[in-house]
Amino acid sequence: MNLIILEPEDFVAEDRVRLVDRRLVHARKHLKAAPGDRLRVGLLDDRVGEAEVLRIDREALELRVALNADPPPASSLTLAVALPRPATLEKVLQQGTALGIKRFCLFHCRRVEKSYWDASALAPAALRRQLLLGLEQSCDTHLPTIELHRRFLPFAEDRLASARTQGPVLVGDPLGATPCPLGLSGSATVVLGPEGGFIDYERERFAALGDALISLGPRILRVETAAVALLARLAQLPS
Amino acid sequence: MNLIILEPEDFVAEDRVRLVDRRLVHARKHLKAAPGDRLRVGLLDDRVGEAEVLRIDREALELRVALNADPPPASSLTLAVALPRPATLEKVLQQGTALGIKRFCLFHCRRVEKSYWDASALAPAALRRQLLLGLEQSCDTHLPTIELHRRFLPFAEDRLASARTQGPVLVGDPLGATPCPLGLSGSATVVLGPEGGFIDYERERFAALGDALISLGPRILRVETAAVALLARLAQLPS
Repeated sequence: MNLIILEPEDFVAEDRVRLVDRRLVHARKHLKAAPGDRLRVGLLDDRVGEAEVLRIDREALELRVALNADPPPASSLTLAVALPRPATLEKVLQQGTALGIKRFCLFHCRRVEKSYWDASALAPAALRRQLLLGLEQSCDTHLPTIELHRRFLPFAEDRLASARTQGPVLVGDPLGATPCPLGLSGSATVVLGPEGGFIDYERERFAALGDALISLGPRILRVETAAVALLARLAQLPS
Repeated sequence: MNLIILEPEDFVAEDRVRLVDRRLVHARKHLKAAPGDRLRVGLLDDRVGEAEVLRIDREALELRVALNADPPPASSLTLAVALPRPATLEKVLQQGTALGIKRFCLFHCRRVEKSYWDASALAPAALRRQLLLGLEQSCDTHLPTIELHRRFLPFAEDRLASARTQGPVLVGDPLGATPCPLGLSGSATVVLGPEGGFIDYERERFAALGDALISLGPRILRVETAAVALLARLAQLPS
């Protein structure tokens, strides 16, 4: 937790918050904060800044807050991932959020196990927790959105149709003919298949819709590794 | 396990192996292999190919092996990482190996907890297991090497001196002034600090030695995320 994220209900006065949950535990156990210390804070979906510790004990952490800076710029990429098993989903959401992704799409395709759609990891509170962990890691405050698409064709044809008007749809695929581009400017949607990859039919649908099948080379990578590698390679860094 | 890695002692005849360990378990439980099936195999530090299942039961997996292809090309990057905690070390080694890294250096610096050097994850068998998992994932056979450098200055000055004659030493640092380059050709060494980053003294040592401090932007990333992101961005993909 490199940033303590505040929510409107934490405020007890205009510039003061009182925290009693895992943020208190973190400040005591990991930061070993004491009165007078300054901690990095941010208001959810708002600005970041510093806070002075006014009180810290077993019961509460009270801070005087000054929010005077913007969080880091968002990525202009959307990340669409075939729904992976829960442990992988958590890594993809946390790492993608830390890399600045603001829009995730989770979609179904042939090699996604249907039971994954019933996993408790997909409950709104569970998804939100992973996003918050990614924001806390990267000192960001803007919560990403997550769309769930339980059917392949409506996702690939209808949902991505609107994405295609905003920028290219790039489908990560070890069999792709195009090496993954470097440093895209502007919006784009990155689509990543499940462990085991897309089936030929799905690959052909994407190609028929005009999407580029891009490859990171012949190595087969785990979904979470491929996601970070594709996003890092496509990212336009602030100069 | 996308590739079953064979070792010389597995061979019971010139083209036949007999496996009784976790590779047997994997073939039965995950691949649900049956006699006549063809599996992807590779010989450690050697070629890859296919094998026909001759026998599979609780006791043994017997394969007829034909090795007729080269594993994927190696990365020309060396990855040096400040020794992280064991769980992070495993991720960095597995993912780095899957991305084709053949040389890892683990080094000490100020924010590395000294106790990490006594972790069982550093035992040769434990390190080797992580490397094998990375090779199995990416269908590679060439085992990377891992160097351990328990003192910062000899590593930064002496060990990296020889690396500097082979190509640039790029130090990943959120405070770095140079955005991480894209698609390097030729050899280079990527140096990554611990959680919490390098201290100013260390940063100054690298700069004084002529190394570039490169940044992925203002976001603070976990070591395993930063490692994959830097390697992916710097990689020269086979075209």
